[in-house]
Amino acid sequence: MADFDLLRTLVQPAQTKIVLLVMDGLGGLPRAEDDRTELEAAHTPHMDRLAREGCLGQHYPVGIGITSGSGPGHLGLFGYDPLKYEIGRGVLEAVGIGFHVTPRDVCARGNFCTLDDQGRIIDRRAGRISTEECARLVHKLNNAHIKLDADVEVFVEPVQDYRFVVVMRGDGLAGQIEDTDPQRVGAQPLPARARDAASERTAALFNRWIAQALEVIRDEHPANGLTLRGFAKEPGLPKFQDVYGLRAAAIAVYPMYRGVAALVGMARIDHQARTVQEQFEVAARIWPDYDFFFIHVKYTDSRGEDGNFAAKQAVIEEVDAALPALLALKPDVLIITGDHSTPSQLRSHSWHPVPLLLWAPATARRDGSTHFGERACARGGLGTFHARDIMPLALAHAQRLQKFGA
Amino acid sequence: MADFDLLRTLVQPAQTKIVLLVMDGLGGLPRAEDDRTELEAAHTPHMDRLAREGCLGQHYPVGIGITSGSGPGHLGLFGYDPLKYEIGRGVLEAVGIGFHVTPRDVCARGNFCTLDDQGRIIDRRAGRISTEECARLVHKLNNAHIKLDADVEVFVEPVQDYRFVVVMRGDGLAGQIEDTDPQRVGAQPLPARARDAASERTAALFNRWIAQALEVIRDEHPANGLTLRGFAKEPGLPKFQDVYGLRAAAIAVYPMYRGVAALVGMARIDHQARTVQEQFEVAARIWPDYDFFFIHVKYTDSRGEDGNFAAKQAVIEEVDAALPALLALKPDVLIITGDHSTPSQLRSHSWHPVPLLLWAPATARRDGSTHFGERACARGGLGTFHARDIMPLALAHAQRLQKFGA
Repeated sequence: MADFDLLRTLVQPAQTKIVLLVMDGLGGLPRAEDDRTELEAAHTPHMDRLAREGCLGQHYPVGIGITSGSGPGHLGLFGYDPLKYEIGRGVLEAVGIGFHVTPRDVCARGNFCTLDDQGRIIDRRAGRISTEECARLVHKLNNAHIKLDADVEVFVEPVQDYRFVVVMRGDGLAGQIEDTDPQRVGAQPLPARARDAASERTAALFNRWIAQALEVIRDEHPANGLTLRGFAKEPGLPKFQDVYGLRAAAIAVYPMYRGVAALVGMARIDHQARTVQEQFEVAARIWPDYDFFFIHVKYTDSRGEDGNFAAKQAVIEEVDAALPALLALKPDVLIITGDHSTPSQLRSHSWHPVPLLLWAPATARRDGSTHFGERACARGGLGTFHARDIMPLALAHAQRLQKFGA
Repeated sequence: MADFDLLRTLVQPAQTKIVLLVMDGLGGLPRAEDDRTELEAAHTPHMDRLAREGCLGQHYPVGIGITSGSGPGHLGLFGYDPLKYEIGRGVLEAVGIGFHVTPRDVCARGNFCTLDDQGRIIDRRAGRISTEECARLVHKLNNAHIKLDADVEVFVEPVQDYRFVVVMRGDGLAGQIEDTDPQRVGAQPLPARARDAASERTAALFNRWIAQALEVIRDEHPANGLTLRGFAKEPGLPKFQDVYGLRAAAIAVYPMYRGVAALVGMARIDHQARTVQEQFEVAARIWPDYDFFFIHVKYTDSRGEDGNFAAKQAVIEEVDAALPALLALKPDVLIITGDHSTPSQLRSHSWHPVPLLLWAPATARRDGSTHFGERACARGGLGTFHARDIMPLALAHAQRLQKFGA
């Protein structure tokens, strides 16, 4: 129900602090032996206390039955309907390696490939070259003084194995461009073709870049070719400060989550934290400077994708053990949830609703919950809702929304 | 998801009776001493029996996190999306004092103010003159024979202290007009300026009225000036009879709730009832003449806004004690709920979901509830939904909706 035009008219200033603590892929499925999920099996005395003092519910990141990727999952948490707002694949790849995407950028994902002497693709992944080899080739491309228009810059960055990103920066660029990857061997890479008039110039610039880049790597082996796909302009999302009146900070270990947060206007906090405890210490350091703190814990998802129930449970327990440091900051509103479910039994993201805990000492309607878990959340006082309703709820409990109508 | 076009195609006649019993501001927060809300703490044997025989749920008047005013709260209960349908401030003020607003009316809220000899505002509230003084000035204005077009009538009515309403009645009037209140001292009142072409004539008429009204009060002190704001035309809402096929009656003590009900086509029942018991007696008297009975209890909200937990609880108990008189009428569908939450701890409206009890002896799916309270409602069989879904639910249980599709 997040209607940004409505929220803009209702937002009022306050001195309150909101923490959104995201355990990536939090939701799980009960295992056979004791019918408990990772969250239900975990020893979480602090979260259980917060559940008793707060209120539970569960949310759908995108919609019922829809398995969400990390990008849409986080957009949902931040209040943006993922079906309306989209972060293009090229941009997501760029922010995923920590590249600072600007509103003047068009990003594309690249694959090195192997071409035959007719220019036809014979290996779409260039024999899965190593990340080091990828970095060497990217370095070579960046040093080749490829010529484009004087007011356009190009950045090439290695990702992993045969994958890289290309970012073109300039005024008036647009990203409605077809993939050059023909998605099969035996075909030549396609030219970058604009889907609309506004993208014609950008497509032509990418074609000029591709032609010169192919000259640079023509004698390489096996990576003597390349394809680009997922062209996307920086999405121009409404910003947290503008929509919610919040100075927001992202405390994330993985670049992609910092990047997505930056796209909605959050400050990307530089830090060396590697543990949850250290992330909370970063929050303490910057506490006076921000109103909203997005703290992202990655390893719940990673261990879920590994299929390791016990290890995912252990990450949840690590978060719980660190919680006193966060609570010592006395947030006015603390929301603990995930961006999607990643049941370790499925070893992948899933469509199951995501448990959510809302703690707000002054205003939460306690719902009789005694612990934080999927089944308690399904019966919680907040009911079942869309992820995009979380931000209005947080703002309300932070006394940051005026009454609607008389 | 009340879709009026859909409902119109499905509505069928029936002999059934629906009662919507609204305890204003019903929802609360649990107090520390026993973790109970006002509704949970209240001794409500009749409602608890209805909960056992019926089905519970909770609703959001406008949306998650949004604190609703009384106008949008009631529009939601009546099935109108408050984000789509709006009752302008001037109209709400007029109906709030019992003025019968018609489709030919444009209403504005007025403030008496104090002007200096340059016509600049030196006190926006004219020293907060008494309601009696306000009534005297309004009487003077109404008797001054202010000249406008022959086919236009003007009504001025006192509200409270320095506040009054002006209603202009005529064909082709429109309300897209800027406030004349400059919202600060030291400035002259602004002319009424139309925001669209359709409102040009109405704005000009208001300016002619203002100029003559200022002559009438020019020698008054301190109220020698006035400002107007919240210009609004009668909203032209779809009517209960047309959308739902219901002959509807409003039994409310406060004029504003009768007025809002009248705007959706309910009959405004004149009565002297002051207690809930007496309101139910009014329902009994008019029972054969209507299909739908909106009964509004104000004091749950008033006592919540006073911060008086025990007094709000007592109002709920008064309603419960009176219920046998209502049940003796044998309604086919009885819905007991609120238009928003007003927790006495917050002394104000809040965004928390509102408990709802649906009793329909023939068709309610009993959900195992044993009593009526916020937490029972959060776990109730109806789940969590938008207020605008209540009317379709009531119609369905009243056998007033046909099957959709074959």
